[in-house]
Amino acid sequence: MNHSELPPTLPQTDLTRHRRLREQGSLERAELNAILEAGFTCHLGVAVDGQTTVVPTVYGSDGQNLYFHGSVASRSLVASPHTRVCITVTHVDGLVLARSVFEHGVNYRSAMIYGIPRLVTDAEEKLAGLRCLTEQAAPGQWDYARQPNRKELAATSLLALSLENASVKVRTGAPDDGDGPDAALGTWAGVLPLTTTFGRPEADPALPEGIAAPAHIAGRAHSRAN
Amino acid sequence: MNHSELPPTLPQTDLTRHRRLREQGSLERAELNAILEAGFTCHLGVAVDGQTTVVPTVYGSDGQNLYFHGSVASRSLVASPHTRVCITVTHVDGLVLARSVFEHGVNYRSAMIYGIPRLVTDAEEKLAGLRCLTEQAAPGQWDYARQPNRKELAATSLLALSLENASVKVRTGAPDDGDGPDAALGTWAGVLPLTTTFGRPEADPALPEGIAAPAHIAGRAHSRAN
Repeated sequence: MNHSELPPTLPQTDLTRHRRLREQGSLERAELNAILEAGFTCHLGVAVDGQTTVVPTVYGSDGQNLYFHGSVASRSLVASPHTRVCITVTHVDGLVLARSVFEHGVNYRSAMIYGIPRLVTDAEEKLAGLRCLTEQAAPGQWDYARQPNRKELAATSLLALSLENASVKVRTGAPDDGDGPDAALGTWAGVLPLTTTFGRPEADPALPEGIAAPAHIAGRAHSRAN
Repeated sequence: MNHSELPPTLPQTDLTRHRRLREQGSLERAELNAILEAGFTCHLGVAVDGQTTVVPTVYGSDGQNLYFHGSVASRSLVASPHTRVCITVTHVDGLVLARSVFEHGVNYRSAMIYGIPRLVTDAEEKLAGLRCLTEQAAPGQWDYARQPNRKELAATSLLALSLENASVKVRTGAPDDGDGPDAALGTWAGVLPLTTTFGRPEADPALPEGIAAPAHIAGRAHSRAN
């Protein structure tokens, strides 16, 4: 992946400035890319006929763009290239259990990307973007499965959102009330970690016997997904 | 929980009608409640100064309302009671690996709730809402940890979004191309399941020795979080 064209520091604009919880913000583009590479689902926020909608969808990122796709008939995709959207990728890493309810929270890594998406019309970029998106969720599948034909490509809209204008927030570690007056309460405090893992592949019941899951799928069982 | 006041069938409005993928929609309020009860983080979509933003946050649901909260200074929370927001809760259950790239997808359960949130000003409802929210993430913590004092309550905005206008989408099961021409390719197809689980509690390093995690926390280790 070529991350060289975008500056290593994220821009501080009115949108992405960390007004609160400054300690949770990051201006490192490397951290943005790490968060994006660790996942494959995001939430797309877009105004459709004046109503904000938040749609879960899959994505691929190559350091320059975040690619997302859907049916050419999808309302949220049709609306996207004409309006400023926000795409958010979040990994929830743990419950922060403090001495006081007020200090309870979540350990997480989150990236928010702002901009007006571009409808990808160039045939070569469209194929590369779909490959990026497929490989992000399921490395090895682009070459293993049947690639999209002309009719399928025509039925699919691919959109690219530049990673230029992005914001990163991360929280890690113990609760914040370990050195305050509540520390004397004798209450247990700490973190209950959360992990998302792949299970063992479940074959389609329609699959004929004797077709084993290939290594690029079977090898992910019990591995971390975020 | 009292689910009795809202009708058992979700409304079909212009917003929530399932235009595409009809087979993935559900109009059962029970299914909405099950999806909400299975999680504790959501994505709040709200227009802030005309820009759509999507913010991850925690929530609690009691069958009537989805409660979410934050600092009284939070821009997304300040904007929320004046505009139509969308809150989406998504559980990703597996990767759908089909014979063709085009049929690849995700098994998921997702709820989208639309409306104008209400700032909770009644002291009793505010406490009940914060309790609901805390207990949804960490059952047992409201009574175990120190409850919010007057100053902390004043620093916290609690918002309630009615569950009246909601949309549910669910995908389960094998890929859809098991009975098409691609089934003859001999390609493995199926689902790679995804599960989110709690790990063992990690004590705050600032905690004095001899304070064990209580059963309502320690007992969640290795249990499913969604």
